[in-house]
Parts: sequence; structure tokens; C-alpha cells
Amino acid sequence: MARTEIAALGEFGLIRHLTKDIKPVQPSTKKAVGDDCAVMDFGTKKVLMTTDMLLEGIHFNLEYVPLKHLGYKAAVVNFSDIYAMNGTPTQITVSLGISKRFSVEDIEALYSGIRLACERYNVDIVGGDTCASMNGLTISITCLGVANAKDIVYRNGAKLNDLICVSGNLGTAYMGLQLLERERLVAQGDEKAQLAFEGKEYLLERQLKPEARRDMIEALRKAGVKPTAMMDISDGLSSELLHICSQSNVGCCIYEDKLPIDFEAAALAEEMNLNIVTCALNGGEDYELLFTCSLDDYEKLIPVDDLYIIGHITKPEYGCNLIGRNGEELALKAQGWNAFNE
Amino acid sequence: MARTEIAALGEFGLIRHLTKDIKPVQPSTKKAVGDDCAVMDFGTKKVLMTTDMLLEGIHFNLEYVPLKHLGYKAAVVNFSDIYAMNGTPTQITVSLGISKRFSVEDIEALYSGIRLACERYNVDIVGGDTCASMNGLTISITCLGVANAKDIVYRNGAKLNDLICVSGNLGTAYMGLQLLERERLVAQGDEKAQLAFEGKEYLLERQLKPEARRDMIEALRKAGVKPTAMMDISDGLSSELLHICSQSNVGCCIYEDKLPIDFEAAALAEEMNLNIVTCALNGGEDYELLFTCSLDDYEKLIPVDDLYIIGHITKPEYGCNLIGRNGEELALKAQGWNAFNE
Repeated sequence: MARTEIAALGEFGLIRHLTKDIKPVQPSTKKAVGDDCAVMDFGTKKVLMTTDMLLEGIHFNLEYVPLKHLGYKAAVVNFSDIYAMNGTPTQITVSLGISKRFSVEDIEALYSGIRLACERYNVDIVGGDTCASMNGLTISITCLGVANAKDIVYRNGAKLNDLICVSGNLGTAYMGLQLLERERLVAQGDEKAQLAFEGKEYLLERQLKPEARRDMIEALRKAGVKPTAMMDISDGLSSELLHICSQSNVGCCIYEDKLPIDFEAAALAEEMNLNIVTCALNGGEDYELLFTCSLDDYEKLIPVDDLYIIGHITKPEYGCNLIGRNGEELALKAQGWNAFNE
Repeated sequence: MARTEIAALGEFGLIRHLTKDIKPVQPSTKKAVGDDCAVMDFGTKKVLMTTDMLLEGIHFNLEYVPLKHLGYKAAVVNFSDIYAMNGTPTQITVSLGISKRFSVEDIEALYSGIRLACERYNVDIVGGDTCASMNGLTISITCLGVANAKDIVYRNGAKLNDLICVSGNLGTAYMGLQLLERERLVAQGDEKAQLAFEGKEYLLERQLKPEARRDMIEALRKAGVKPTAMMDISDGLSSELLHICSQSNVGCCIYEDKLPIDFEAAALAEEMNLNIVTCALNGGEDYELLFTCSLDDYEKLIPVDDLYIIGHITKPEYGCNLIGRNGEELALKAQGWNAFNE
């Protein structure tokens, strides 16, 4: 494959090369790449803003993450935050720190993933910063979105007796990561090793190419349900549920047998001697939605596809607990991934 | 000095510690740190967005840049982009990638600089991301601002015969950097070396603690002048002027003897055998404003403090030229700093 050194284009050349045929699709985008700032007109809507930084060696390992997938994921995790406020993502800026290890073709691959995500979710790339780095790849994306004031859902609105719901399934992205790590170690021992990914494509996809649950936001809207509190699950269900409970000043009770778990993920967990419930509670990176809804909405929630009611909100005195399959009560802990620990 | 490991607080603990007493001052900030997104209400104003990434070893050297100054500068360079559109900065998100070398106290120092800049410029910190990094310190700040549609100044509005103006002086930040680099090399040879910074504090300040030219934007507004094109000077006058000319499809002619040059900077350049005009043209990091104004505004520009008319806009066929002290004509080149070159 061709390798063009980034120095051959220079910073401005690279930016021009990556952005030359970008055409904004959002009516709110008035001026995209090419000036000191982007300019947006949101009318009287509320503006949402979120940001995510991904660092090589911490958040991703390029030994098994293709650059295009990485770009896609870096954008989608930001969209997920906007949907988690019941908003619609509209614009992003993309900042890249790039070491000499990377060629123009590498950055094209990364950018093509970012652009694919933007096309699928109707989001405009309106600016960014591209610079050399001493070590590895750094990706920092900031996303704007819009919402009507009355539609925004915060983390602090959960009320006593509300139903606790999640979309999709939990722990699957984590099992995808375990699979990739295992095969990486196998391959290290033998360069011709056949990687055992067959039949496990879904796990890989959940780890490498997550989607933001726009469909769930739309389904809830169609069902006439506005959640009372909501967030996306990036650090694991336990950690996020503790956030909602502490910000809403409530407790919660969820049931082990209600947790939505994918069959492939469970099978791999068994094979690898992992507890799939622990993975579902603390795995992270699922980018599913966690939300609470009024009991009055129960009938409306039932027909919504891929939505699972896993428990209910309690008084704060009760704490945050998981009821096991045998009725035992376990306090939820935020064991979510903490990269600052050794 | 005390050293608290970041692992002792964890990611959420660190974020809480850094942001616990942040109080938004902008009426447009409806929800700051603490949810999936920040929420803003800009009414019917236009929203400006810009972003800047700073990487250790590329953009800064912590051997001589204090962390508090670094934080201040990282915020101010973003404000500068918003002013360069004739807007007002209102919110930032701050993403940090932090290696184990840094303690909680280090990040407090960095953050105190960011917060000081925000206080001085009335900007709210509304979110961010804090994560571990493998190597060094990464800072990515994204800034929002507002402007009325009719006030926004782009790069592409320069017209034939417009006056070319700059604020402040040029090349000074670059000379500050040369001074710091020289003294770093001196100190390397001898740990007890007395650094020769006396009388050169202004140069250091221009490099370490630049300001955004809000005052010039306000002065122009007061004088009743709206520039036809504007940008801030981060990569050097030549590079920026070429941007304005190419985007406006015009040429330009500037005069060497009109370039505003600081006396201290000129003296140091002489001492170090550097050509101060080259430094002024290509030095970068001055964060002064470069703008063009209609000839009709000439009378209004004269009384504005710290504003220098350095030339005028020509037909595109003329190209972009500097007229030397002896009348010689030199084509301007974008020799601006390119970190992708070896």
C-alpha cells in the first residue's frame, strides 16, 4: 500500500486534503471548515455540547483496531452523549495529534470512519486542529447537538417507583475486547496463528464499531414516553446507575435475571471463565441507553423493541442493589474502568 | 511540595476536585459540568465554535513553561479565534490526557491557569474529558462564542484598496521563545546558571502568557469600524495574510517600515543574530489581530490605540508582497511553523 509522509503535505495541506469535499447537511451549519471558527444558527433551540478524548495505548490498540473503525467509534461515542440528553447531534470538530509513524493514507482511513459516522447520523464536520505528536495518535472530538428545552432529559430526574430501563444488551462490547486481547496474545506467539473470530463477529462489532441508540430515542418519542432521567452506558451499568441515583437522590433495585445478555457474549464468558453478570455490570463501552420512566408509562414501554425493564427506583435509604437469581441482595459498586489505577 | 497521585482520586474524583466550585457566569449556560452534555441557550444569536490541541514536546516544553501559564495560554488561544470572528467567547470544554508523571497538584496548577483565563474573559467551563495517557500531557480545548449575524467577520471579505491593519506588535512571542530556549541550553550546561531574563520580562510574558485582543475588538466597535476580513496571528503574519488574500481573491502590499516591532524584541534579535523582520513575518504565537478595513474608515482608525496600518489590499495579479526599507519588493511566503517537517 502507498505511503505518503504527512510532511509532504504539511498541516494545511493535510487539512485541505481531508476536508476538501465535505458538504454540510445540517441547516444550522452556516460556515464549516476554513475560518477561525465555525458558525452555527440554532434559532431558539437549546445547544448541547460534549467532548471525548481517545489516546493510543489507553483507549485503543492499533494492533487490532482498524483506523477506519476507530474513527467511526470516536465520532459515535460523542453522538451517544447527545442522544442520552434526548437531543440530536448536529456538528463536530475533530482534533488529531499524529506521530510520524502515521502516513497520509492512515489518516485518510481514520477520517473516512469519522465521515461515515457523520453521514449515517447527519452530522457536519465543522472544524478541528491537526498537529504532529511525539508519540502515538490522539483523537479529540467535540460534538454539538440541539434539543427543544422541554425535551431535554438530565441525569437528575429519577423519581421513586420509576422503572429502570436499558436498551440492547450489556457486557457485549467488553467480551469483544476480551476476544481481541486473547487473539492478540495468541497471534504474538505465532505469526501464522488462525484467529478464532468465526461466529463471534457480533462481539467484535460491538467493541469495534458501536452505534449510538438514535433508534431508541426515536422509538420512545413515537411511543409518547419522555424518560425522567437518562444517560448512556460507557463505563458500565453499575457506574452509570450510581450516577443517576446520586444525582437524583434516590436508590435503586435491579434484578440479575432481567439484565439483557447476548447469547454469544455469555458463551464466550463461560469459555474464558468470566462471570457474564459482572461483565454486564462493569464492562463498559456498550453505548446503550440507561433511563428511568414513570410507572404510568409502563403500557407504552411494553411494545418498544429492544427495551428491557431491569428494575425500579427506590428511596435513597435503600441504597443501590442488585437482586441475584436466588434472591440475595448485592450493593452495586462503581468498578468501572479506571485508567488512572496501575 | 505535596504530591498526590491521581490514582488516589480516580477519574471522577479528579474531575469533581477540579470542577466542584465552578460557577457559570454566562446567562447562556444552562447546565455546565455533570451530565452527558452541557446545555446552552443562545437565543437567536449565531454560535461560533473553535478548537485547539496542545501536545507536550510539540507545542510546549515543561522545562520552562509553568503549568499555570500553560493552562492560561491553552484557553486564551481559543478565545483569540472567537474574537477574530468579531464574536464573544462564552463556554469551553477542557479535555486532558495525563501521564503518571503528573500529580493532582500539577493538574490543579494547570486548571488554575485555565480558570484564571476564564474569569478574566467571562467564559464558563461547561465540560470536558479527563483521562490517563501513556506519554506526556495533552490539552484539547473547544470554545463556543456568540455574535449577531451582522457582526461576524470572515477571512474572505477583503476588498481592493482596503487598509491592512494589525494590533500590538509582531515577532515578540517568537523572541520570547528564543530567549527561553537559549537559557534552557545554558542551564543544561550548569545547574547553577543565572538565567539572563532581567529586563526581558515582556518577551517572556508574550510567549508564556499571551492575551486575546478583546480590547481591540471593543475599540473597533467603539470607533464604529467593522473590519472587512479578520483573523488572529498564530502562525505568523505572512501565513495569515496569505490566507486572507487567497480566501478573498485579492493581493496585498505591506511595508517593512510599518511593521510594529517591540524594542526589546529587536534588541534581543540583534544580540542573537536574528533578523527581526523575518521573526515578525514568520514568528507565530503573537495572537494579535490581522484585519482589513475599508479606506473610508481611515479617519476612524487613526485614534485607535495600538492599531497599526501596515499596507493595503491590491488586485490578485499583484500577488502578496513586502516592500523593503529600500523599496525592494519581496514575495511573502508562508514559512509558518510546520511541525510535520523534520
